[in-house]
Amino acid sequence: MEKLSGDVFRFSCPPSVKAFASVAGKKESEGPMGEYFDVIDEDAYLGEDTWEKAESRLQKTAVQKALQKAGLDASQIDFMFAGDLINQCTGSTYGIRDFQIPFFGIYGACSTMAEGLLLSAMSVNAGYAGYCLNSTSSHFSTAERQFRFPLSYGGQRTPTSQWTCTASGAVILSAEKSKVRICGGAAGTITDFGIKDANNMGAAMAPAAAATIKRYLDVTGTKPDDYDAIVTGDLGITGSGLLYDLLMREKTDIRNVHKDCGVMIFDGETQDTHAGGSGCGCSASVLCGYFLRKMEEGSMKNILFTATGALMSPMLLQQGESIPSIAHLVHISA
Amino acid sequence: MEKLSGDVFRFSCPPSVKAFASVAGKKESEGPMGEYFDVIDEDAYLGEDTWEKAESRLQKTAVQKALQKAGLDASQIDFMFAGDLINQCTGSTYGIRDFQIPFFGIYGACSTMAEGLLLSAMSVNAGYAGYCLNSTSSHFSTAERQFRFPLSYGGQRTPTSQWTCTASGAVILSAEKSKVRICGGAAGTITDFGIKDANNMGAAMAPAAAATIKRYLDVTGTKPDDYDAIVTGDLGITGSGLLYDLLMREKTDIRNVHKDCGVMIFDGETQDTHAGGSGCGCSASVLCGYFLRKMEEGSMKNILFTATGALMSPMLLQQGESIPSIAHLVHISA
Repeated sequence: MEKLSGDVFRFSCPPSVKAFASVAGKKESEGPMGEYFDVIDEDAYLGEDTWEKAESRLQKTAVQKALQKAGLDASQIDFMFAGDLINQCTGSTYGIRDFQIPFFGIYGACSTMAEGLLLSAMSVNAGYAGYCLNSTSSHFSTAERQFRFPLSYGGQRTPTSQWTCTASGAVILSAEKSKVRICGGAAGTITDFGIKDANNMGAAMAPAAAATIKRYLDVTGTKPDDYDAIVTGDLGITGSGLLYDLLMREKTDIRNVHKDCGVMIFDGETQDTHAGGSGCGCSASVLCGYFLRKMEEGSMKNILFTATGALMSPMLLQQGESIPSIAHLVHISA
Repeated sequence: MEKLSGDVFRFSCPPSVKAFASVAGKKESEGPMGEYFDVIDEDAYLGEDTWEKAESRLQKTAVQKALQKAGLDASQIDFMFAGDLINQCTGSTYGIRDFQIPFFGIYGACSTMAEGLLLSAMSVNAGYAGYCLNSTSSHFSTAERQFRFPLSYGGQRTPTSQWTCTASGAVILSAEKSKVRICGGAAGTITDFGIKDANNMGAAMAPAAAATIKRYLDVTGTKPDDYDAIVTGDLGITGSGLLYDLLMREKTDIRNVHKDCGVMIFDGETQDTHAGGSGCGCSASVLCGYFLRKMEEGSMKNILFTATGALMSPMLLQQGESIPSIAHLVHISA
């Protein structure tokens, strides 16, 4: 491994993407990404009796599908990294407990897929794991009632609000050679610009994304145009605009190559999703549905997947605090 | 690195313990471990205006103290792993945001210190980090109201209940040589024996501890008597008894060398703590207060630190679910 600096990595034996799978709900299936998801379940309960159990089922399905696509049994996975938005990460822990895979729980809010991929890649590159799995999920109904209002309250959504996606993604990395590989990445640092509005996650997360992207470009000596896409997790429309502004101040223009999973997953014109999609499952399902597929097909060769997380606590907001955010970056090449 | 199996590691370049620090509250300072803590704050609010902010302050103090003991500035730490019990891990994220250290958030409930140590050791051993920090915390008042009852309700505690410790611990690992080193470890697997009582965490976690300890002994071909102590996180009195029973069924007797941080931290006779202490800060502060100190002094040479976590969700319990648990093991030698 070539360690470029404390928090920026380039892997000497780039771990390969063995398999990936995405699962999404009805609304997500009706958006522009609909055709790319592996599994669509139109029942918001996924056959369970509560939304929380439905989210666990979502993640379980993504993991099962990834294992199936990889042709692997759960017992062949050395360990996994997973987490989600729900208190105590129940989407993950209850979703994966039956697989009996050694498990490291992670919490990075919507940055979880990038955090997990980075830790998985570090583990495979170092020889700790032959196969390493990571997964995450989100569910509109579990997240909205936990972070904002009871759904039955029917509160009006503000223009900057984002729609938590009902979706999940799972990726299996391996030391075997394959077309798509994780060649490097950067660990994020907590960034807090003092945003206190739980309905403006994009603004809270944009500074974290800007810092991590700028740092990776600087340390690796690369330019935005060296990549087919610089992907952010779920800044949405508001956050993406702020990201451009913040990076332009640093004389870095990513507009030509920038894609935001929160903007991509819904059709803002017809789906009434305001600033776009959000949730751990948003960037995870767009990565595992769209981007990794495009890379496997060969139409994209080089992307920076930068999932962003608002480490927001409803209780701390009630106590007058702001929203700390983080962005982890994974460099994927084909 | 010598990888003994998918989930059991032995490090070829054992990362060393550069520094460690512990912080505890008033009740903890009055127990048998009182003399070992670095910092004691008798104010349950630690000068803050809410318990959640107090817990963040607790963890911030532990990290500051560990940096000070190591003679390091926060900018010298390559990255850190931290997490805690409170929703969205606010004890960690709000506690450490000012340090501006690249950060991986983890969630393992009370197993957090072992999970973080294992991931830190993997990172240092692989050369990803020169200095890697990990920290965790818990606070009686934040945890009790989140997981059980509003404190002002004054509910009567059951005999198997444990007392969430107001405490924090932080450890800095490094690639430099020093007396105390992390020589191996094992990642835990989620274990769920169907316990549904939020006041009997020990019973929920004992099977996870038994599985991880047995696995490490088997894979490494070692016996309980090869260690000065097999330490569990916070099984308490009830859980420790169950751990002995479960291991005896496997013809493994650890009673001679077993120590439980939850039993050690309070005096059950005089402190009215029922089955003992619990919380991420319990095993973290006893490790960083007592065990690492004993190892540095030379009176202990070889311990298995097995922190256990009940991945319990109050909401999922209300929905009829049981408590999944996990135990991660870290082999520390001097």
